Amino acid sequence: MKKIEHIGIAVKDIEASNALFEALFGEPEYKTEAVESEGVKTSFFKVGPNKIELLEATKEDSPIAKYVAKKGEGIHHIAFDVEDITAEIARLKEKGFTVLNETPKKGADNKLVAFLHPKGTNGVLVELCQEIS
Amino acid sequence: MKKIEHIGIAVKDIEASNALFEALFGEPEYKTEAVESEGVKTSFFKVGPNKIELLEATKEDSPIAKYVAKKGEGIHHIAFDVEDITAEIARLKEKGFTVLNETPKKGADNKLVAFLHPKGTNGVLVELCQEIS
Repeated sequence: MKKIEHIGIAVKDIEASNALFEALFGEPEYKTEAVESEGVKTSFFKVGPNKIELLEATKEDSPIAKYVAKKGEGIHHIAFDVEDITAEIARLKEKGFTVLNETPKKGADNKLVAFLHPKGTNGVLVELCQEIS
Repeated sequence: MKKIEHIGIAVKDIEASNALFEALFGEPEYKTEAVESEGVKTSFFKVGPNKIELLEATKEDSPIAKYVAKKGEGIHHIAFDVEDITAEIARLKEKGFTVLNETPKKGADNKLVAFLHPKGTNGVLVELCQEIS
């Protein structure tokens, strides 16, 4: 794994949170994007080599809506940048991790993504992501 | 803020978690450290320019023990690397954030650290950290 690509933070009101994180980082979001298939609106902030992704649910039954209803706002996942997501999925399955997406899916920010089940990673939802070239 | 310095993950059994994260990253922790004043044992993994810090409580009344009792294992905080922690504390106070340590304190990994109250940051416990030179 090459670095922390981003940390995903679940929020209730992305406009208000954009203002908050702009104050925190001293710079506004550089991109916003809706991912219809996931039922989310997202915005991205750069912090050196890393990013912070804010996620607001746009559908009541989306994973982010369920997360916020159950746990409130907060850190939702950590995404690690990988060179070859297919090889990483195979390696991690062999190590005993539960990969939720055996075939990587298209995520936000031009990435192929796959998630590991948090029950196998100390409660941390881990995303693997590879830039689509 | 220069980058995500590390993500802190609260765990119940740091030995078991060290093995788990070694399997995840393909490399073992490069350092372990006890911080008596915080009542924790820590271990650190490198992921490119970033780190993952595992934290196990060594005292029942430590912040990590309380966190695990209330929320279970999982992501506890995000730490951002800053150039000048005193200037950042002043800047963030002026922006309306609640800084929990107006005077930075000595943390793990040879750092001066200060935390922001998660009520002001969408439920995210934010740590500022500056390497002690």
